[in-house]
Amino acid sequence: MTLRIAVAGATGYAGGEILRLLLAHPAVVDGRAQIGTLSAGRNAGSTLGEHQPHLVPLYDRVLAETDQETLAGHEVVFLALPHGQSAEVAEQLGPDVLIIDCGADFRLEDAADWTRYYGSAHAGTWPYGLPELPGARERLRGANRVAVPGCFPTVSTLALYPALAAGLAEPEVVITAATGTSGAGRSLKTHLLGSEIMGNTSAYGVGGTHRHTPEIAQNLGQGAGAKVAVSFTPMLVPMSRGILASCSAKARPGVTAEDVRAAYEKAYADEPFVTLLPHGIWPQTAAVLGSNSVHVQVALDESVGRILVLAAVDNLAKGTAGGAIQCMNLALGLPESAGLSTVGVAP
Amino acid sequence: MTLRIAVAGATGYAGGEILRLLLAHPAVVDGRAQIGTLSAGRNAGSTLGEHQPHLVPLYDRVLAETDQETLAGHEVVFLALPHGQSAEVAEQLGPDVLIIDCGADFRLEDAADWTRYYGSAHAGTWPYGLPELPGARERLRGANRVAVPGCFPTVSTLALYPALAAGLAEPEVVITAATGTSGAGRSLKTHLLGSEIMGNTSAYGVGGTHRHTPEIAQNLGQGAGAKVAVSFTPMLVPMSRGILASCSAKARPGVTAEDVRAAYEKAYADEPFVTLLPHGIWPQTAAVLGSNSVHVQVALDESVGRILVLAAVDNLAKGTAGGAIQCMNLALGLPESAGLSTVGVAP
Amino acid sequence: MTLRIAVAGATGYAGGEILRLLLAHPAVVDGRAQIGTLSAGRNAGSTLGEHQPHLVPLYDRVLAETDQETLAGHEVVFLALPHGQSAEVAEQLGPDVLIIDCGADFRLEDAADWTRYYGSAHAGTWPYGLPELPGARERLRGANRVAVPGCFPTVSTLALYPALAAGLAEPEVVITAATGTSGAGRSLKTHLLGSEIMGNTSAYGVGGTHRHTPEIAQNLGQGAGAKVAVSFTPMLVPMSRGILASCSAKARPGVTAEDVRAAYEKAYADEPFVTLLPHGIWPQTAAVLGSNSVHVQVALDESVGRILVLAAVDNLAKGTAGGAIQCMNLALGLPESAGLSTVGVAP
Amino acid sequence: MTLRIAVAGATGYAGGEILRLLLAHPAVVDGRAQIGTLSAGRNAGSTLGEHQPHLVPLYDRVLAETDQETLAGHEVVFLALPHGQSAEVAEQLGPDVLIIDCGADFRLEDAADWTRYYGSAHAGTWPYGLPELPGARERLRGANRVAVPGCFPTVSTLALYPALAAGLAEPEVVITAATGTSGAGRSLKTHLLGSEIMGNTSAYGVGGTHRHTPEIAQNLGQGAGAKVAVSFTPMLVPMSRGILASCSAKARPGVTAEDVRAAYEKAYADEPFVTLLPHGIWPQTAAVLGSNSVHVQVALDESVGRILVLAAVDNLAKGTAGGAIQCMNLALGLPESAGLSTVGVAP
Repeated sequence: MTLRIAVAGATGYAGGEILRLLLAHPAVVDGRAQIGTLSAGRNAGSTLGEHQPHLVPLYDRVLAETDQETLAGHEVVFLALPHGQSAEVAEQLGPDVLIIDCGADFRLEDAADWTRYYGSAHAGTWPYGLPELPGARERLRGANRVAVPGCFPTVSTLALYPALAAGLAEPEVVITAATGTSGAGRSLKTHLLGSEIMGNTSAYGVGGTHRHTPEIAQNLGQGAGAKVAVSFTPMLVPMSRGILASCSAKARPGVTAEDVRAAYEKAYADEPFVTLLPHGIWPQTAAVLGSNSVHVQVALDESVGRILVLAAVDNLAKGTAGGAIQCMNLALGLPESAGLSTVGVAP
Repeated sequence: MTLRIAVAGATGYAGGEILRLLLAHPAVVDGRAQIGTLSAGRNAGSTLGEHQPHLVPLYDRVLAETDQETLAGHEVVFLALPHGQSAEVAEQLGPDVLIIDCGADFRLEDAADWTRYYGSAHAGTWPYGLPELPGARERLRGANRVAVPGCFPTVSTLALYPALAAGLAEPEVVITAATGTSGAGRSLKTHLLGSEIMGNTSAYGVGGTHRHTPEIAQNLGQGAGAKVAVSFTPMLVPMSRGILASCSAKARPGVTAEDVRAAYEKAYADEPFVTLLPHGIWPQTAAVLGSNSVHVQVALDESVGRILVLAAVDNLAKGTAGGAIQCMNLALGLPESAGLSTVGVAP
Repeated sequence: MTLRIAVAGATGYAGGEILRLLLAHPAVVDGRAQIGTLSAGRNAGSTLGEHQPHLVPLYDRVLAETDQETLAGHEVVFLALPHGQSAEVAEQLGPDVLIIDCGADFRLEDAADWTRYYGSAHAGTWPYGLPELPGARERLRGANRVAVPGCFPTVSTLALYPALAAGLAEPEVVITAATGTSGAGRSLKTHLLGSEIMGNTSAYGVGGTHRHTPEIAQNLGQGAGAKVAVSFTPMLVPMSRGILASCSAKARPGVTAEDVRAAYEKAYADEPFVTLLPHGIWPQTAAVLGSNSVHVQVALDESVGRILVLAAVDNLAKGTAGGAIQCMNLALGLPESAGLSTVGVAP
Repeated sequence: MTLRIAVAGATGYAGGEILRLLLAHPAVVDGRAQIGTLSAGRNAGSTLGEHQPHLVPLYDRVLAETDQETLAGHEVVFLALPHGQSAEVAEQLGPDVLIIDCGADFRLEDAADWTRYYGSAHAGTWPYGLPELPGARERLRGANRVAVPGCFPTVSTLALYPALAAGLAEPEVVITAATGTSGAGRSLKTHLLGSEIMGNTSAYGVGGTHRHTPEIAQNLGQGAGAKVAVSFTPMLVPMSRGILASCSAKARPGVTAEDVRAAYEKAYADEPFVTLLPHGIWPQTAAVLGSNSVHVQVALDESVGRILVLAAVDNLAKGTAGGAIQCMNLALGLPESAGLSTVGVAP
């Protein structure tokens, strides 16, 4: 049987990246799977080529409306929709379809957190699509619902989890993360115009107000086995893709630089997509561009007693679409790395 | 037998891109081919990871010197060396090795042109690696020497050849091409520093002095069946990759917009890597980033009687390393598109 | 008497740049003039600080509606409005106010050109605000209406006028101009988003369809004393400000490189804001950023018989707001250079 | 008497920015001061126009060697030299010349800090050129030696000093600062090439190793009246100019958001070049580009008990050359703001 895969939200950045990766996925290349419905909101009726000029093989695909009818008949449906729209679509599709939601709707476990940060009723919680977390692969294998993590939570969690889980760091973390603009989506906002972005670094969501804050705290809390205070500050920097997270936490007494490195070596020794960089090499977003890699480097600043972790991710790839494909592979029983690469596009 | 492939100049941009593409090439993935010696100049002895942090699977490879000994024992050798160094290396390797030269040394047929533009003795002429030119595929199949075209000649030739070959345009062309900085290589020059490049567009090589001028003229002359006057002006624009060429020539009397479009449709109908864009869509470099595609669009400006052709290429991919892989595929009898994609990485 | 100066369209890029320059203008600094009404469209009622965070001294100014009442009582009114809105505003303000229009409405002399390119009825023709054109200063001194040139026409005209006026070039010119994004204004369009712009060069307005084409032809025609065929292709490059124009035309028989240089030296010897660069230095947009300078360099490509002129301008400064201030100075009888600089902000 | 001003290191970014500001300084404009010797290292003998194409009025100046002879006969000498060269030059010039050193040599008070971070013998300590610090103006008035602060220390100190001085924050601060590339100077290093920088954010100097760390600690320690632990992480982001610093520290018990804002309002109410932004507006580097402004915004994240301060500066302007001019004004008894602007160049 040929798997049919639909993508809802195909004209956005996340949807485009899912399609880019699917076009190179071995299951699509060899015909075991095919790309079915591509849907869009206000762009329904136009062709994909008008919106995603890099996806040559799909130029002529006509965009459907995003609804029950157009998404029916697929074994896999990726949702790359604005927050708050996934629950209704999921309900219509029935329990047997594999639905992989790139939105935030089903990431949080705490309904109060959801309401505080998103201002609406909580839709529920789906298996959380960060395979590198303990126990996650088991939950994702055979799942037919997956909540793909946010881009900042992906990189921040992978950066700090080992230090907290190994008991090396106090449960108060400070994260400042520089992000490219594609994380904000293809939305028509003045501050996202090229003229405003180029040559400019700006702050936003300061003081714990960014919606990814509770998601980071949820993940790190699982690592620490206790509540973790997360101070999270994003910065918008002039590039399209990539996040570099600068993370730190106070080291517990007696912790050495070797302890820190050993914890990360152990945590990531067998992870296909997390690379603890060699000594002396610091992460940079260009090295992971287009790839499913997260690059991590650690240090202990002994003069102030803080563990530093720097980590880089492509927010659209491993931070969204690549992570989604990785989850699809697990859910369908395919090799986890199928269609995903550790190799970035640089320079 | 496993093919062994060496890359000389592995720490540069072209060498890195060849390796990026090889790592995803089916022959390498399934073990029919393997990546052998990686050599470098002053960086010999260090590891590739220090220079190409995006090439995770090759981090630990130690760079060899570029010489006869280290390059021996390979069936395929890519040369990504500064101009003027290829001839000596090629001679040492013997006639049976497939040598694919990304440098300029063997591109020009006219020794006087070579000397005028490069200031040294002409090394000779190898089969020219632009498979889209008439007769080129025949010459490249089974070849064991290939001269990969320059990046500007690749895009300019594909932009203007059909109009000249179909007799639609006068043999006097004007080309202004905006290029990203990677085309200048990884060279330590003040004007290539990020601080000078960002927010800046500059001119260079004006007035027919750029070394790619005679190569463009050579190719277009073959199309026109006559000498073609080429006015070529490059501009350096603030991006790493990509060339957008703005090309024009006077239309011959009576030529219509339909004639022009028809000539390009015919020329590129069966080309896997040249896409004549749908009406109303103009080329942009982001759409071809990392891919082997060339995007082309044409117009006839009737008020001034000129044919306009805009074309975009990734200078490192189809413009250098992708073109080189395409030639390797032809020379080795592999499927021409193996390991190459028409899909860009955007945004 | 204190001059009162109003700016209509104060939240856009042109309006912001006019204000930046006015804040440093000696007449404003020493109190002979003051900045009066700042008006905006949908942003009326908010403060300027929310829109122009670089204009610290004007943060608290509340934006007015753009109408007769708010603009009354000023001796100078700058209009930085969308095309088609200036005529009505001008009529309301009466003939004695100095109105400097940064829009296109009153630039063209030929009503048919206007209608062809802008699709509406022609509003009329005002004195054209390019002081460097022969006779222009005389027309601008004491004027109370000024049509500020478009950014591409400013740089293209200054690039090619001397060669045509001196009879050195044939009246068929080819211009490809790379522009930063601020020339498109602060408009919410998908292709202007930072994510689409960065790392990308794109073509638009190809084939004589860009609205600045007839304005360039009008100016050059005056220089040549005959109709000039203008092939104009703009490219959008990833920077906020700046235009680099690559211009060429066939040299008339017998013309030498010395002839070309001499014509430009003569034309610009006494111009405060046009610099013919020393031999060997080519224009770059960073060198004119924020300044009122146009940098020009010339060459004769003897192998193809074409005169090449490269010219750089800051589209918002000399290309719009700086040119507007220069015209204000002339119209008011102030020193032409007051408040304007030849020094760019680099790197 | 006409003041003569020399600039040593005129071909670098700091030297170029000093000259840009001097050309617009009222004392230079009206002839009370003039720009004398411009010196350079390996570029001596060439003209300034070859290196600083934005400084049109100084194009023809021939660069001198940097030595006693060429710098003699000036009342003011700016040093924009590599670290370690200032002491010798200063000694040669004698005690009566006003020497303003943009290098690090005389910033630190603690000789051990100097040796630890710079690896050489400590040259001494000069009056520290951050006028906004308590008591600094008194020390700078009439001084003839000034150590201009580093760019990161300028913005980090102004960001955190008020919170520490008011006893609102614990003396353990975490700073992650995104910087443009010009802060690294005009040095030929591979990682500073445009191709590596664009589309890339990278980490460096992690773990307390950046040389600006002890300078920040020195300043903040004066504010806190006690040793302050400084965790400082710089990031290199793809823009030429600007630093955005994300700073935080634990709030002392009982501290409210109003306390924090009040402390900053009080600290900066009368400062001409530090702007506490209105509520809801966050700093961005584009707003201060080319200006002498520092933009600051504060928040209290109550859920984690941390004070957040975001601050933006132009590293070359207020962060180096603008700060240097401000100090010159104070030292010479000129109005402190002469030749300096709070208005940025945007977009």
